[in-house]
Amino acid sequence: MKIQPCFFNAHHAPIGAFASFTLGFKGASGGLGFEMGHPANQNVYIGLESGQKGVYNALPFYDSPEKHEGLITSDPAAASVPEVRIEPFPDDAVSREYGLCSDTWQAGELRFTVYSPVEPVPDPGKNPDHGDLPRILLPAVIAEMEIDNRHSERCRKAFFGFTGNEGPGMRRIGGTTGDLRGIGQGRNLAICTDEKKTGSGIGYSAEEVLYRSSSAGTVHGGLGTAALLLFDAPAGEITTLRFVICFFHEGSVTTGVEASYFYRRFFESIEDAAQYALHHFPAIRQAAVAAESRIETAPLSAQRRFMLIHAVRSYYGSTQLLDTSEGPLWIVNEGEYRMINTLDLTVDHLFFELAMNPWVVRNVLDWYARRCSYCDTVRLPGDGREYPGGVGFTHDMGVANVIAPAGASAYEQPGRNGLLSYMTHEQLVNWVLAAAVYALNTRDGEWLQSKEDLLCDCFASLINRDHPESGQRTGVMRRDSSRCAGGSEITTYDSLDPSLGRGRGNSCGAMKRWAAFLLLHRLFEMLGRAEAATEYIQEARRIAGMILSHVNGSGFVPALVDTVPATTALPLVEGLIFPWQAGCGEVFDAKSEFAPLIDAARRHFTYALSSGACRCADGGWKLSSGSDITWLSKLYLCRFIATEILGIDEDGMFTEADDAHCRWLLDERNSYFAWSDQFRSGAVVGSRYYPRGVTSILWLREKRRDDVREALSN
Amino acid sequence: MKIQPCFFNAHHAPIGAFASFTLGFKGASGGLGFEMGHPANQNVYIGLESGQKGVYNALPFYDSPEKHEGLITSDPAAASVPEVRIEPFPDDAVSREYGLCSDTWQAGELRFTVYSPVEPVPDPGKNPDHGDLPRILLPAVIAEMEIDNRHSERCRKAFFGFTGNEGPGMRRIGGTTGDLRGIGQGRNLAICTDEKKTGSGIGYSAEEVLYRSSSAGTVHGGLGTAALLLFDAPAGEITTLRFVICFFHEGSVTTGVEASYFYRRFFESIEDAAQYALHHFPAIRQAAVAAESRIETAPLSAQRRFMLIHAVRSYYGSTQLLDTSEGPLWIVNEGEYRMINTLDLTVDHLFFELAMNPWVVRNVLDWYARRCSYCDTVRLPGDGREYPGGVGFTHDMGVANVIAPAGASAYEQPGRNGLLSYMTHEQLVNWVLAAAVYALNTRDGEWLQSKEDLLCDCFASLINRDHPESGQRTGVMRRDSSRCAGGSEITTYDSLDPSLGRGRGNSCGAMKRWAAFLLLHRLFEMLGRAEAATEYIQEARRIAGMILSHVNGSGFVPALVDTVPATTALPLVEGLIFPWQAGCGEVFDAKSEFAPLIDAARRHFTYALSSGACRCADGGWKLSSGSDITWLSKLYLCRFIATEILGIDEDGMFTEADDAHCRWLLDERNSYFAWSDQFRSGAVVGSRYYPRGVTSILWLREKRRDDVREALSN
Repeated sequence: MKIQPCFFNAHHAPIGAFASFTLGFKGASGGLGFEMGHPANQNVYIGLESGQKGVYNALPFYDSPEKHEGLITSDPAAASVPEVRIEPFPDDAVSREYGLCSDTWQAGELRFTVYSPVEPVPDPGKNPDHGDLPRILLPAVIAEMEIDNRHSERCRKAFFGFTGNEGPGMRRIGGTTGDLRGIGQGRNLAICTDEKKTGSGIGYSAEEVLYRSSSAGTVHGGLGTAALLLFDAPAGEITTLRFVICFFHEGSVTTGVEASYFYRRFFESIEDAAQYALHHFPAIRQAAVAAESRIETAPLSAQRRFMLIHAVRSYYGSTQLLDTSEGPLWIVNEGEYRMINTLDLTVDHLFFELAMNPWVVRNVLDWYARRCSYCDTVRLPGDGREYPGGVGFTHDMGVANVIAPAGASAYEQPGRNGLLSYMTHEQLVNWVLAAAVYALNTRDGEWLQSKEDLLCDCFASLINRDHPESGQRTGVMRRDSSRCAGGSEITTYDSLDPSLGRGRGNSCGAMKRWAAFLLLHRLFEMLGRAEAATEYIQEARRIAGMILSHVNGSGFVPALVDTVPATTALPLVEGLIFPWQAGCGEVFDAKSEFAPLIDAARRHFTYALSSGACRCADGGWKLSSGSDITWLSKLYLCRFIATEILGIDEDGMFTEADDAHCRWLLDERNSYFAWSDQFRSGAVVGSRYYPRGVTSILWLREKRRDDVREALSN
Repeated sequence: MKIQPCFFNAHHAPIGAFASFTLGFKGASGGLGFEMGHPANQNVYIGLESGQKGVYNALPFYDSPEKHEGLITSDPAAASVPEVRIEPFPDDAVSREYGLCSDTWQAGELRFTVYSPVEPVPDPGKNPDHGDLPRILLPAVIAEMEIDNRHSERCRKAFFGFTGNEGPGMRRIGGTTGDLRGIGQGRNLAICTDEKKTGSGIGYSAEEVLYRSSSAGTVHGGLGTAALLLFDAPAGEITTLRFVICFFHEGSVTTGVEASYFYRRFFESIEDAAQYALHHFPAIRQAAVAAESRIETAPLSAQRRFMLIHAVRSYYGSTQLLDTSEGPLWIVNEGEYRMINTLDLTVDHLFFELAMNPWVVRNVLDWYARRCSYCDTVRLPGDGREYPGGVGFTHDMGVANVIAPAGASAYEQPGRNGLLSYMTHEQLVNWVLAAAVYALNTRDGEWLQSKEDLLCDCFASLINRDHPESGQRTGVMRRDSSRCAGGSEITTYDSLDPSLGRGRGNSCGAMKRWAAFLLLHRLFEMLGRAEAATEYIQEARRIAGMILSHVNGSGFVPALVDTVPATTALPLVEGLIFPWQAGCGEVFDAKSEFAPLIDAARRHFTYALSSGACRCADGGWKLSSGSDITWLSKLYLCRFIATEILGIDEDGMFTEADDAHCRWLLDERNSYFAWSDQFRSGAVVGSRYYPRGVTSILWLREKRRDDVREALSN
């Protein structure tokens, strides 16, 4: 699809390599990023000789060469080459075709496409030797450059290269191993080709490399951080060049748990990966084209299709499949924060994973059960006594390749009431929901049985955070984990106002509790444990009653049921997605015992939008009437629940919101960060370069299409 | 020794780990640097609770915490902790005692000493299992902190920590493995202790960690880049804490030639190295103290002792001992440029290596002979024809862990007449000089015989760069390597004016040629090849005659003998050091056939100084009357040659120069870079953070002490 403005960063990421060839924002804003929470900020040079001597045109992904990192600062002449100039193609000469797995820039006679994968990963725990794994886990993306020199009478030089970041030196690859030609930085980054007539050079600037290549043929020397691959595009022809853009990290890469990348089972070195990628270039491209075509037929508006594509790409840039002595470990790193498998992201990635890689859900849940759970006690506010708690799960598994000690997270700290406090109740609910949805979706009975005891413990722990005695329960979380040490629990909505961010008395949290009890009920029916199942459904009923009792005169349920003022929050409906995803759609029927609850949720949501409580001035949506901060991933989710579960008509408030959300992402203030989650007044304020937008995968499962939206989407 | 001003950066470096705990310049200017060409620019926190609640004092090696790298940018409150302030000790409260192997800061009740090694390395090629190698190659330096809390009535918190650079997360080490407690970044950097009552914490700022440690006891959470070790210094006592500051790089670290660090033979991981360091703490400290005491008895002025110490430390920070399938490879990286074993540095490090590690000279020469030599043809200026050339050596072996292809360097490029051109003649002479001095010093006959053919080839190649026919030789280099491809060769003095920087007609180069032929003559006498020996000495005589014929009316030899204007250059005398170091001192006797040459050199040097041609306004020396750029390493060398070989009296021009050179290094504009080589008007303009100052090791061998200098040195 064509996107305007077209200069936004996008991930072009391998699967599970925690790497991305990010490109699209002007200037030194992209490049070969590796285990980073942001773009690599390298100059990327993709260009072609112009008709004018010494002048080259390139896509605008580099900074002007005023400031050269000089070897010999006393002689700037060494780096500056007035004879050569690289001019960016004018903005209006560049067009971009942006798809799920291909991203093409066309400018003048140059066409450049990057292909990146979107494909299920066969369970590496079950079959580590699966024949597709090397291709799917290949730590590389591929690219093609086409130079249309049919209307020129002279050979023109084309180039592709980048400037490395601080670290090992730049190098030229090839000559010794088969047909491989390339440039790279140390052992970690490389751009390679199998084009036989490839030149390459390293210098203080791309201009200098081009200058030396034109004067001396071969480019000698290895100083400087700019490296280019160089080609001659003969006159009168179209020249097509193939590239593989590779990332590699050998050996152990983590602490806490020792792990290497799973792709190390298949590739010895970056050269090895590059060879493989070039050898399998057609198959890799074909897989990308096939994946992309599947999404192109989806009846989504341009805005929503863009957001979905953009989000899926950002997700893959954060993925990391590791190989440990305890088996594979699938990690989604948390965008700019790089936290490992944040459990409240896992529960949002659930819909994507179940569509693509159900084993990933099981893998992460198993790691959480085995390593990232703990047993706590609980406290009432203002009461120093400790009451029985139960099993809890940490917020995350660590940060930036540092796996946290067992039972601890990178994020959580005691003594806090806001950011960085514990999320024990939230993560307990999340673990149960993810486990239940996984088991009910996949019918993985063996796994369910292995988790039966833990699920019982989870129920007890959930109950203890309300009240251990049935008669005293209210249905809402009321007790903080003693890990808070005087502070109080928060929710995943940590950066929003307390109405969403506080754990206790939270109606959105209560709705997720409701879903958890409902699904526990189903699981224990499946396990043939009728008594437990009955006990569990009672809790779901209790919560439904509690929620209904709090519907206020305006028709909405306050975000906190135990305090004033009453704020309105869209995520009240969030809990509904889990029964839906678990295949329990009958819960939403008019004859269901929970019909009144669903009806209240529908009225709540309708009120939140139509009253303007949860809408921004530009038509975008806000999660809470009490905060100007909003998260796109959750809005995507709520949008789906509204139309598909609650049956709310997709009116102008929906399409206006799509337009606004799309504008936010493409705004020049924000689009350096590819897909980001957290916005305030249309400006990104956190959760940049983030994976969670894949909640939008649900949009592909919409059944209630309406003509109005279709008409508006063109 | 006490140095004022005391806030200059110094390396505290292990041997052969390409790492340094650099510290001393104010602000975030030092820290745990790892394979870098500059200090790590980390905040380093070394401090102590003050008498005032919430106020801590620290050495001034950190930036103020205004700009915290925040996780949650929308809530700056998460990182800022108004209750805690770290104030730097006032400048005048800090004193520093700076030695070869110990560096101590004293401020208030805090005393902090870093110990770093200066010790010969047993030849790892001959005996890789030598019992001392683990201690000597240990990739760590050690430190002690002393808190004198005898006059206080309360326990005070002390801390030591740093903020990591971009890369893997910060982590806490310990709990599981013995007594080890520490903090670190990923698998590469760590500060550890065996103090049992050690706390630690990670946060967005040191202030935040201190705040949380005081309010909650244990510091939970792992987000942020600041990590501290925390201690309680009891009232009424002196508390002494021991630290090991460790660096580790696993696996292959280079390209071109695959290599790992040699220390990997002894240590599995950074924890392993830390354990070893703590276990052997007394022996490591004792070795440092012993090495330091040896230099303290040397009769050097304070200025010269400081420069020597400073230079030796910088040298070690650039050293890197690798383990390859072709045996060990000793590397000295070239300071800020990180070029590998630059051969014109090798020849300057010769005096240091022969004193400390003679095998290093052989090792580097062998690698050059095996991998970094080539065979070229030569050309006359303005004559396109190619004439026989011969064996040549590259300028370097690569850059920044990227080992250049065989026969190529990172630096050299064709088609140039200045910087970045080839140095074929220079490096050929350097290889011969280093080989000859090594063989004559060590009497390593076996090695000499293995290099006999190559030395013959070197002679032929040297000759061909003058003229292949004896009758047409002038004694000076006149032909450029055809590798220059139309350009012309330069010398090691690449950044100076052409009088020193041009290869052809260079009298300084001719004097090194003279030394090369003289020593080849000695070598071939040693080999029993009288005929060749006679041929070689003829060439030395020819050069002597040529030089003497160019002594001009002012009494100096112009830097270029084939052009005007005539510039005066101190390094004319440089060649004299090689016969001296090779034990051929009789060359300098009054009865030697070369006495007229030595006399001319003496008059030249005296003229260069007394005329002011090679002196700066502040009394410092300049290498050439034609350039304001000067290099300290070469001045150190020339100084030694002047007094010890030429017998020039060490008058005020010498001690003034020592003062000036010392001032340059300590100038606030320069002292961030520890020892640097290249200055202009007292400001560093290149070759920062550089290893070459170890030419000053020669000063320890001075015999002609004079009382004037001794008197002036206090």
